[in-house]
Amino acid sequence: MVKFKGYEFIDGGVCAAAGFKAAGVIAGIKAGNTTKRDLAMIYCSERCNTAALFTSNKVKGAPILVCKEHLKDGKAQAVIVNSGNANTCNPDGVEIAEKMCGLCAESLAIDVNDVLIGSTGVIGQRLDIDVIKPKVPELAKILSEKGSSDACEAIMTTDTRKKEIAVEFELDGKKCHLGGISKGSGMINPNMCTMLAFITTDVSISSEMLDKALRKVNSVTYNMVSVDGDTSTNDTLILMASGLAKNKEITSQDKNYEIFENALFAVMMNLARETARDGEGATKLIECIVNGAPNEKTAKVVAKSVISSSLVKAALFAADANWGRILCAIGYADADFDIEKVSVELASAKGKLTVCTDGAGISFSEEAAKDVLSEEEIRIVVDLHSGEDSAIAWGCDLTFDYVKINAEYRT
Amino acid sequence: MVKFKGYEFIDGGVCAAAGFKAAGVIAGIKAGNTTKRDLAMIYCSERCNTAALFTSNKVKGAPILVCKEHLKDGKAQAVIVNSGNANTCNPDGVEIAEKMCGLCAESLAIDVNDVLIGSTGVIGQRLDIDVIKPKVPELAKILSEKGSSDACEAIMTTDTRKKEIAVEFELDGKKCHLGGISKGSGMINPNMCTMLAFITTDVSISSEMLDKALRKVNSVTYNMVSVDGDTSTNDTLILMASGLAKNKEITSQDKNYEIFENALFAVMMNLARETARDGEGATKLIECIVNGAPNEKTAKVVAKSVISSSLVKAALFAADANWGRILCAIGYADADFDIEKVSVELASAKGKLTVCTDGAGISFSEEAAKDVLSEEEIRIVVDLHSGEDSAIAWGCDLTFDYVKINAEYRT
Repeated sequence: MVKFKGYEFIDGGVCAAAGFKAAGVIAGIKAGNTTKRDLAMIYCSERCNTAALFTSNKVKGAPILVCKEHLKDGKAQAVIVNSGNANTCNPDGVEIAEKMCGLCAESLAIDVNDVLIGSTGVIGQRLDIDVIKPKVPELAKILSEKGSSDACEAIMTTDTRKKEIAVEFELDGKKCHLGGISKGSGMINPNMCTMLAFITTDVSISSEMLDKALRKVNSVTYNMVSVDGDTSTNDTLILMASGLAKNKEITSQDKNYEIFENALFAVMMNLARETARDGEGATKLIECIVNGAPNEKTAKVVAKSVISSSLVKAALFAADANWGRILCAIGYADADFDIEKVSVELASAKGKLTVCTDGAGISFSEEAAKDVLSEEEIRIVVDLHSGEDSAIAWGCDLTFDYVKINAEYRT
Repeated sequence: MVKFKGYEFIDGGVCAAAGFKAAGVIAGIKAGNTTKRDLAMIYCSERCNTAALFTSNKVKGAPILVCKEHLKDGKAQAVIVNSGNANTCNPDGVEIAEKMCGLCAESLAIDVNDVLIGSTGVIGQRLDIDVIKPKVPELAKILSEKGSSDACEAIMTTDTRKKEIAVEFELDGKKCHLGGISKGSGMINPNMCTMLAFITTDVSISSEMLDKALRKVNSVTYNMVSVDGDTSTNDTLILMASGLAKNKEITSQDKNYEIFENALFAVMMNLARETARDGEGATKLIECIVNGAPNEKTAKVVAKSVISSSLVKAALFAADANWGRILCAIGYADADFDIEKVSVELASAKGKLTVCTDGAGISFSEEAAKDVLSEEEIRIVVDLHSGEDSAIAWGCDLTFDYVKINAEYRT
């Protein structure tokens, strides 16, 4: 977890903010599943200003089409989410997704247009509404301020860890909260946002400022994560604001907006980081920091190129300081800079060492490098020595288990 | 092998064309290697019009810098190539590469500027010229018209098969020949050409037309191959023409140029295809054919997106007809078309079946699909139903062995 001054990390996840409750149950959506929660509900006592971002894939899951429709007024009060089936590329997908929203609205006695929806799992298999139907009223009944963890479990697919993070901070002397849940862990190369993330806050903020903050923070968090280069059809990131913290509504980019944006960054950055760490089959989190870039875009392109390289990822799985592959990935990044100035440093809790300066290798102890790379969190620090801009990207190693998981996923 | 009317596939590889000889020996360039040839020489009795393409990676191997210098006059007579060390990112790389060319020129009694050079292997380790020095005269001595296979072995790294192809055809009633050798098999995502490929012909053709043909054919062959998305620092494709077939020199895009270009396509397409088939750890060749595109660029982008998807590659390793991943990869391709019109067919020697029409799944027999996908050559045929243009891309499946090979490469 990366900490930030003025923001206290707290429990509660997606229910940390005032007004929010959640729950998760076992519905048995994927054939044979009788043990893992797979249907979640998030509910707020208030209609919330809501901002959202969705996949840039031309193939969009039915839930996304329904969300877009329901978000035309920028308001939402509940979210229903299932794992085990993506409800994507099905002829009746939108109809089924609308029905799920309808059931949710009915059980909560709210407007169906205030219900958002997410689905994750296999693509192109019909989602059976009959399995879900009896579980929706049950979810509504057990909604609780302690339900974040169950909801988080329910949205997981091949994830191995729950990703829940929340912070507390102050605005106008009022205690404010912002927290969320998120899931990975394959088909992760967000080009808008990651597969599914639901974030809530009790801050009072206008729709316009909420949207601005979400786009800005997304561009430097989820959009900087890659597990396997595959941009999902169902990427969904939803941010709901209840306003119950009773601060003066944020309506411009003032100091309070900045405090809010930083809170959003603290939560989304850590969620994104955990998503990379829990990439399918991963044993290591790889963080690539690019400094000295002529502009932010260059820094981003280079950082993402490094953490996306199959060869770099496989080398780090073996704790092998094969810096040539890192330099190679820097070299084919689609950006303009002088490769002859580049330096590369490898770092972890075990220490750090420079392996390349001026675009060429330097001698270093392979033993010391192996020691640094044996940790579970690896930092690759690149300096382009061509300017002042920086970026960070997050990825994971490429392992036997990634292949195993994805060669067996449907069977 | 994909055959073409009017072009007879023959033995001889890089020595099939009149005037060319080759050889390969064991020099022991990689520590511990005492059994595999790792140093090759190709020589022509004539100074050849020579065209070449090199990697677009900003990090360029020293051999590439030397080749570019030596090719300023568009002529070459010999090539020296080693595997086991890429001679890239070394402070004295260019000096060493020049020395290798010098040794080669001396042993053949030709101008050093007529010697080209290639190196492949690990990046960032100093190449020891002393190991190579005594072997160069030996190579010159054993050069033979039957040496293609030994030279082909010498340029291999993690390749498991030799890639040698040659054709015979006629121009002006003269028998002409064109053939080459090529190596893969990791860090393969050519963005100019593949790692190392050397092609020779006895056709008489001007430098300008030779260059035109090489660029054109490269764009639809090597540039359409991806094994792992990593564009190498050492991609080198060299085409030498001795003119010994004694046809009237090709100096414009006439009918003879077309015959020559088709011969080049027949050889390069098959070499590229074999490079994909022999991708690191691969058990299957994946050929993606995109039809019905509004333009060639769209067809190419979509085809390459499909064969590059880690998730598609892992699914095919398991012979799993997970077409949703194929549609997902089509959907995130950076191109403009209507996803709702897309159809996908899976095919192999065992038969074919349609799995998706109008952008949505249709019911099919999973058993029949498994049978089709159990073959070693899989065709994914995509129809965008949005125009008349087509493209083909070649890739391979993602397997445990890819991870194994790349997690152990340096050790």
